[in-house]
Amino acid sequence: MKIHFETDYMAGTHPEILQRLIETNLEETEGYGSDEYTKRAEDLIKKACGKEDARVHFLVGGTQTNSTVIDGLLARHEGVLTAESGHINVHESGAIESCGHKVLTLPQEEGKIKAEDIEKYISNFYADDTYLHMVAPGMVYISFPTEYGAVYSKKELQNIQSVCRKWEIPLYIDGARLGYGLVAENSDVTLQDIAQLADVFYIGGTKLGALFGEAVVVSNPKLLKNFFPLIKQHGALLAKGRLLGLQFETLFSNNLYERVSRHAVKMAMKIKQAFIEKGYMPIVNSTTNQQFFRLPNEVIDKLSENVGFEYWGARGEKESEVRFVTSWATKEEDVDLLIERLNF
Amino acid sequence: MKIHFETDYMAGTHPEILQRLIETNLEETEGYGSDEYTKRAEDLIKKACGKEDARVHFLVGGTQTNSTVIDGLLARHEGVLTAESGHINVHESGAIESCGHKVLTLPQEEGKIKAEDIEKYISNFYADDTYLHMVAPGMVYISFPTEYGAVYSKKELQNIQSVCRKWEIPLYIDGARLGYGLVAENSDVTLQDIAQLADVFYIGGTKLGALFGEAVVVSNPKLLKNFFPLIKQHGALLAKGRLLGLQFETLFSNNLYERVSRHAVKMAMKIKQAFIEKGYMPIVNSTTNQQFFRLPNEVIDKLSENVGFEYWGARGEKESEVRFVTSWATKEEDVDLLIERLNF
Amino acid sequence: MKIHFETDYMAGTHPEILQRLIETNLEETEGYGSDEYTKRAEDLIKKACGKEDARVHFLVGGTQTNSTVIDGLLARHEGVLTAESGHINVHESGAIESCGHKVLTLPQEEGKIKAEDIEKYISNFYADDTYLHMVAPGMVYISFPTEYGAVYSKKELQNIQSVCRKWEIPLYIDGARLGYGLVAENSDVTLQDIAQLADVFYIGGTKLGALFGEAVVVSNPKLLKNFFPLIKQHGALLAKGRLLGLQFETLFSNNLYERVSRHAVKMAMKIKQAFIEKGYMPIVNSTTNQQFFRLPNEVIDKLSENVGFEYWGARGEKESEVRFVTSWATKEEDVDLLIERLNF
Amino acid sequence: MKIHFETDYMAGTHPEILQRLIETNLEETEGYGSDEYTKRAEDLIKKACGKEDARVHFLVGGTQTNSTVIDGLLARHEGVLTAESGHINVHESGAIESCGHKVLTLPQEEGKIKAEDIEKYISNFYADDTYLHMVAPGMVYISFPTEYGAVYSKKELQNIQSVCRKWEIPLYIDGARLGYGLVAENSDVTLQDIAQLADVFYIGGTKLGALFGEAVVVSNPKLLKNFFPLIKQHGALLAKGRLLGLQFETLFSNNLYERVSRHAVKMAMKIKQAFIEKGYMPIVNSTTNQQFFRLPNEVIDKLSENVGFEYWGARGEKESEVRFVTSWATKEEDVDLLIERLNF
Repeated sequence: MKIHFETDYMAGTHPEILQRLIETNLEETEGYGSDEYTKRAEDLIKKACGKEDARVHFLVGGTQTNSTVIDGLLARHEGVLTAESGHINVHESGAIESCGHKVLTLPQEEGKIKAEDIEKYISNFYADDTYLHMVAPGMVYISFPTEYGAVYSKKELQNIQSVCRKWEIPLYIDGARLGYGLVAENSDVTLQDIAQLADVFYIGGTKLGALFGEAVVVSNPKLLKNFFPLIKQHGALLAKGRLLGLQFETLFSNNLYERVSRHAVKMAMKIKQAFIEKGYMPIVNSTTNQQFFRLPNEVIDKLSENVGFEYWGARGEKESEVRFVTSWATKEEDVDLLIERLNF
Repeated sequence: MKIHFETDYMAGTHPEILQRLIETNLEETEGYGSDEYTKRAEDLIKKACGKEDARVHFLVGGTQTNSTVIDGLLARHEGVLTAESGHINVHESGAIESCGHKVLTLPQEEGKIKAEDIEKYISNFYADDTYLHMVAPGMVYISFPTEYGAVYSKKELQNIQSVCRKWEIPLYIDGARLGYGLVAENSDVTLQDIAQLADVFYIGGTKLGALFGEAVVVSNPKLLKNFFPLIKQHGALLAKGRLLGLQFETLFSNNLYERVSRHAVKMAMKIKQAFIEKGYMPIVNSTTNQQFFRLPNEVIDKLSENVGFEYWGARGEKESEVRFVTSWATKEEDVDLLIERLNF
Repeated sequence: MKIHFETDYMAGTHPEILQRLIETNLEETEGYGSDEYTKRAEDLIKKACGKEDARVHFLVGGTQTNSTVIDGLLARHEGVLTAESGHINVHESGAIESCGHKVLTLPQEEGKIKAEDIEKYISNFYADDTYLHMVAPGMVYISFPTEYGAVYSKKELQNIQSVCRKWEIPLYIDGARLGYGLVAENSDVTLQDIAQLADVFYIGGTKLGALFGEAVVVSNPKLLKNFFPLIKQHGALLAKGRLLGLQFETLFSNNLYERVSRHAVKMAMKIKQAFIEKGYMPIVNSTTNQQFFRLPNEVIDKLSENVGFEYWGARGEKESEVRFVTSWATKEEDVDLLIERLNF
Repeated sequence: MKIHFETDYMAGTHPEILQRLIETNLEETEGYGSDEYTKRAEDLIKKACGKEDARVHFLVGGTQTNSTVIDGLLARHEGVLTAESGHINVHESGAIESCGHKVLTLPQEEGKIKAEDIEKYISNFYADDTYLHMVAPGMVYISFPTEYGAVYSKKELQNIQSVCRKWEIPLYIDGARLGYGLVAENSDVTLQDIAQLADVFYIGGTKLGALFGEAVVVSNPKLLKNFFPLIKQHGALLAKGRLLGLQFETLFSNNLYERVSRHAVKMAMKIKQAFIEKGYMPIVNSTTNQQFFRLPNEVIDKLSENVGFEYWGARGEKESEVRFVTSWATKEEDVDLLIERLNF
């Protein structure tokens, strides 16, 4: 039997959410988020964030969330600063540019960018006489955790926030896998911290137990004041909005969001440990639910027979980089089986 | 107990679909539509359309479907012809324009446009010397049924198709409520007809039994050849694509799509008949699941106490226009209750 | 010899401007408007407008000016209100939409819109529950004079301004032919009035004696704060910016702008009078440099042999609408010749 | 007296062009390029290019030309490949992105990109499973000469063309300074070669003797078939189109375009030689009208007293990079003066 570690969006939804969908299926509610489930989900999230003055919006997927938020935050002459490896720069089919905005790239390490590189970029930008002919850096985009599963420390985030405040541009955090970052062993950042540090961020649902859905939190209430029509314009407004509300209400009840996150990370750490013991060192120090290794092609080929995982980039001549991903749906017995199969 | 006729997207999903979601919830499949459910749904739809060479794509909602399709069909200097009342012109927060395209409007009756008006628009356009300074009509958008619940006859659609072919521009049909139109008493149009008449159309799921989802059928295989990255760019690509496949597989098995449509239209006809008998004539001749009446404000106020329905436009001084909508979820006992409450 | 009344951009530039271009041709100045001619032109215009705190920018042509200004004034979810006959709605190849914004149309008379229609549109818009799914009216665009050569009275403009202020949206005046409107016999509006009434407007140069060029005046200094990079982004920044500065410096010296305007309008009034005497009534009451008549086709055909003018719309069966335009370059002897030829 | 080497767009227009502008100033012609001057200029350019089936369009400036052409060549899901240092990537305020397209960057040397890097980018792109989530390389943009004044050899261009043909994407050459490249000592490329190698390119006028203007040559007649309305939509259509026609007619008569180019390059070579003799080696091997040197700050400061030139990037601690530019307007006596002043 094949076991799966390709992505964190392979199964449906966490059973507790499925249960709620079943229970409420026949209820009739107003559309577009004007329902009680959505209201309650908003309140739960604001409370969890410790930000009563925040606004919360629910969208369907990550790319649409990024392009809608970024389109709302930037003026026409501005672009968004991100790591070269940032999802918006690489894997969104040009969604940001399709809204008219340039993606401005910074060097990265493990997917992270540095406050000093942001500072350098912006101060150099304004130092160059010709800056009025260039795209102004209008906001900063980071992912927590990053594309490579790494987390920023609280100090690193504070430094980035300081640079943003100095230059008066908003900081936006892509939290497609936010929960996994918050529960990482080496993470000293809480959801409340994120809500204090970011002007806008989103709490990923699709990859953390929901069928689908992302919760945008506008921490800085001066921003995105006309976000609803923008959501509609971007095709990101779900008719049966209560489905999003219900899922996030469930995720933020009984600690589900944290439980889902902890389970996946625990499974990932077990995999990481096994690979290390086997002599395969991770290529980045990911402490979250994605683990990256460079493996001999023969190991990859053998494993592939009954284990699903993905190449990370192109196949090399002798070795290749691969990724293993866990989620709420990862069964510990499958992890054990993976480790066993690694020992062929 | 309040009964609901506000919209056709108030309840969750049809029980047969819910059942399939439950059964398959823990399965792990690849993302973005590369799964077997999606494959089977595509095949079922192509078969139902009688178009083996069609391509089928699944998106999440109507506005995003319209803007993604239209963006894919138009060249940069072209606009889309539609009824003044067209959804893309009125209720999509400028989604079409946000992609750079002008919406060109034609007069409408019951939401329908006429082949001769399209012909007149286009021939006048090219007759005017200054047309190179104007937005070229690059495609035609119609809804079947229309925003007002009316259906085009097969002859009317053939005439529109002829004009489109003459001027070599594609015809796109918005089928957000397609099923309701196909089963309408006065409709002589089949799904196969639609697939022959339209170059591209979509089969609405959100308003016909699915939790969410719309199936785009590219009947003319020369068009939209690079649609996948465009779906992604528009933020319309669902990570757990199999959810869409599964829902449409179910809708196109055991006649579910037709059953859902027939039930809702039957309920709507019952309501229509009762209103007529009560002396309230419909303001348009809708034969589908939306019924529009002009009612005295006192009747509206009385009914509103325990019946949900919507104003269609602003409240008038003495009378106002209102809409009652049915769906698969409309219970016949609720319709009876509505009729009873009408007789206060 | 053929005489010309087709448009007001048929000849090169006014001799006084040509003289200055010749005198300064070999001077070497910095690019992009950082030169002394541009500085002086800005100062002359601010003084003529009686608005020392205004900002002035020079662009090359009308369509690019409209799309750059409107793109800078609107938020992404907003559209621009205009007359159905507005240049931005009809004759700019979708330039506004290509920047992502919907053009929202109002009924017109002689190209003019009414304050009460703007008020009605906006109050209806916010009265409709579904307005968050629609394009918000984010600014008002009018032309002075209009496409049909008519002028707004000061009172009419004040009323429009009041509605704009009430709803807190900017008023933008397209002054492609501004001078002709200011000197019209029935006009009670001065340049200073325009600068007080509009938040942003432009003073047309292309059609009033310049080789090319339009001067955008930002009367409300809170708006368009980052206009320079937007001009560049829109491809509207002239490398040899001093050419624009020099032309406007000349236009606003020795009363040239007014002299150019007066001459053209005087010629147009002479034409108008002659047509009326001949029994051809103008189809709109234009008091500026464009005159519109409905003429028998046989008259049109006869005149066309040696007089250039344009159809206004398509040729009719027996009669057609035509336009005669004057400019600084219109010679009085040519006007006399036209009148003579009319008496065939 | 200060002498100027800051840019090649500091003076007005070449006296031969000015003469023609004076002679024709009072002529009245149709607008938008429907005049005889424009027709003749098109014919002259097609003949000079040896491409009778080419189409020629005249636009006003470089950034608008790039964004209009690229917008016309790319499908919505595609981006444009360019050197990191490409003008479209750095100095156009995001004009390309404002039209919805991502700029995809390649490493450069002296502003040049290599055929093998293009090949590698595209083949890697399609080798990666996730390419449908990424921006497809839809065309190649190069400058001839480059931003650094370097020229591609014919062989290099042929190699780039081969890669483009293999992948069926157009090659577009930005010829803002085309003439300077064609006459460079080390250039083996003719205008006819450019017309054979590029699918679309433009012949720069602004920097080569015209007041303003760029001539787009569509060598591959299958492309940009609806370019006129796109020019209008981009605000790039000059009302008095004959001004562009007249200038290019003059530039392509009596060898003017070549004479202008040769003079500027000759002056640049004299400067280069003098700097080398003085011990200041050029930082790139430019053989065209722009010369780049790294100079001690004290030399820069001294020279700056009466010589105009530009920093190329930010001022360094002890040394900085600077640029000297020549044009048709550069007087040999000023070059001699520069050399003399260098010997302080």
